[in-house]
Amino acid sequence: MSVDELRQARAYLLRVAEPPAPSLVTFVAQHGPVEAAGRVRRGDCPPEVLKATEARREYDLVTQDFARAAAADARLVVPEDDEWPAWPLLALDLAARRGVAEAVPPLALWVAGEAALGDAADRAVAVVGARAATEYGEHHAAEFAYGLAGRGVPVFSGAAYGIDGAAHRGALAAEGVTVAVLGCAVDAGYPAGHVGLLNRIVRSGGAVVSEYPPGTPPARHRFLVRNRLIAALTEGTLVVEAGRRSGARNTASTAGALGKVVMALPGPVSSGMSVGCHALIRDARATLVSTVDEVLETVGRFGAAEDTATRPKRPTDRLGQEALRAYEALAVRTDRSDAEIAAESGIPLRRVRALLPALEIDGFAVRGEAGWRRRRESA
Amino acid sequence: MSVDELRQARAYLLRVAEPPAPSLVTFVAQHGPVEAAGRVRRGDCPPEVLKATEARREYDLVTQDFARAAAADARLVVPEDDEWPAWPLLALDLAARRGVAEAVPPLALWVAGEAALGDAADRAVAVVGARAATEYGEHHAAEFAYGLAGRGVPVFSGAAYGIDGAAHRGALAAEGVTVAVLGCAVDAGYPAGHVGLLNRIVRSGGAVVSEYPPGTPPARHRFLVRNRLIAALTEGTLVVEAGRRSGARNTASTAGALGKVVMALPGPVSSGMSVGCHALIRDARATLVSTVDEVLETVGRFGAAEDTATRPKRPTDRLGQEALRAYEALAVRTDRSDAEIAAESGIPLRRVRALLPALEIDGFAVRGEAGWRRRRESA
Repeated sequence: MSVDELRQARAYLLRVAEPPAPSLVTFVAQHGPVEAAGRVRRGDCPPEVLKATEARREYDLVTQDFARAAAADARLVVPEDDEWPAWPLLALDLAARRGVAEAVPPLALWVAGEAALGDAADRAVAVVGARAATEYGEHHAAEFAYGLAGRGVPVFSGAAYGIDGAAHRGALAAEGVTVAVLGCAVDAGYPAGHVGLLNRIVRSGGAVVSEYPPGTPPARHRFLVRNRLIAALTEGTLVVEAGRRSGARNTASTAGALGKVVMALPGPVSSGMSVGCHALIRDARATLVSTVDEVLETVGRFGAAEDTATRPKRPTDRLGQEALRAYEALAVRTDRSDAEIAAESGIPLRRVRALLPALEIDGFAVRGEAGWRRRRESA
Repeated sequence: MSVDELRQARAYLLRVAEPPAPSLVTFVAQHGPVEAAGRVRRGDCPPEVLKATEARREYDLVTQDFARAAAADARLVVPEDDEWPAWPLLALDLAARRGVAEAVPPLALWVAGEAALGDAADRAVAVVGARAATEYGEHHAAEFAYGLAGRGVPVFSGAAYGIDGAAHRGALAAEGVTVAVLGCAVDAGYPAGHVGLLNRIVRSGGAVVSEYPPGTPPARHRFLVRNRLIAALTEGTLVVEAGRRSGARNTASTAGALGKVVMALPGPVSSGMSVGCHALIRDARATLVSTVDEVLETVGRFGAAEDTATRPKRPTDRLGQEALRAYEALAVRTDRSDAEIAAESGIPLRRVRALLPALEIDGFAVRGEAGWRRRRESA
């Protein structure tokens, strides 16, 4: 099986059903992409997969997709590639196991730009917010993105007007890595006023990413579907400004459901564009951050991202404050229930349940018969 | 024993040691105010009481104190009076039992103004903040105080320049009850620029309160000692603006230690005067509030303060959100440990330990041998 065959199969699968297509993703996981693509083409698949794919299964636009992508300097990054951001996207699998409906991993991603996606997503922060942003919000989105990117933290956002655009621009000003994840194809030229910005992102060592095939126009539902990728590809999401019903709150709630860190910037209480941020903080769904240092402290993981000489000495130095508290609440020899860990650590049960699987992935915790315990080698 | 004798004894005791005088307070609790005053006068008391009182025990300024108070239209309110705010001040006794050093109840309070202190303190909110406030802070202090006072919630503050003054003025503008608790005598004429404001408070059905005898000048340590009374006399404290080391943060931390509700107003992250508020929220030592409704929801207790027709139907309707969650985590027949209640409710252990004694006072919880359970009649 050649890599090209793989890549062609995944390009076909990306187009044959509108993402997220949970039944198709499961089918691909069971049979592998090449066999799955062949069976979908022949209509030889379970009823729910057939239903999701029947409208488009006879279209074969793979050659055209690759040609259009090449014209836009884009490539298809597949899970079989080294640069696939497998680690951050694991959060989608774990959340799916916990029953989070929107936690469907992408089948592949169209990427324009030099950044190796896996490296960029390894220790990134999403900076998102309302399109109808205020001067206050745009100013701080740019400042935070500048500060993060300047310290080697890639800044992900959605390339929308308002906060998203300010975040990308701030990261570019710091000559840092910034990644735009779109709710349309990478060559859709959307939003029209940001085509220049998207080109700058591609040319400056960043990336423009989409799971939609070349030519796919933007659509409202696609922005919501895209939001899960912004949440999944980053360690944490900072909401800079959000109105009462902002899409940024959707990204924040997805990030929370994925067990990622959710942060929000406070603002004047008289500003309608800070209402969503204040609600997230008030309901303890987001941690208040007011400086770049606080963002780094809250996300916690990077330690010294740029300088290997100052990398953390103990494995637990990589953990965020909250994760460290949860870790410290674990015993080495006896299993503790999630409720006991919540009580011991003072972290709400809901957060403990999100942190423990993350600690497991990172090799700090082991799931036992009666609960969780510390992984011996981590101490 | 006449009431006058009592009142005279307590006036003497208020002057003989600088508040808070924990050893003297304990001595008075053991022997009653009249006997305690007599023994202090004769030097017939334990060494630590003697030490706290020996410098002033031979001064007898009681007659002069009452004369000066009368000239300032002030009276001495003592724990034996009906209007004594026994209920809110219970938080000091409970916190003292938990080992909170600053939780020393006052021996009596000098009060100018018509408000019955116990009624005012029954369901009050403290609105406090920095003296070096911004326009943003003063505007919102006045707005929040106006909104609270307009709904029948007395507003307590410290009469300082900046946030405190704006809070008192806002409450007066709503023709509501406002109470100033001072770090000097009620007749000290301090702060000089607020003498007119203090007079307005007294004349408008509010009160000016101090545990310092007439003539006592302001002093830095007295403001800190006074802060515990603002925290204790209210259901919750709202910090409107606070710099990195503001005294308002001291009031907030005392309120937290007393198990009272602590709230903070967010503001622009670029404002040095919101730094203290953001730190309180970020560290989960205060709940973010951005509207008057959120203050009422957070403090929770009042239900319908003004209109008896809409008073809550079930006893638990009086509880705040967090207290209700803690209550719901209690079982009727079996005791649960504070850790179990924390795990069950998702409320951090530290807060649970503050909430349980409050639920006990309010008749919702009973302390058992192995923890806490629901009081049967409350269900």
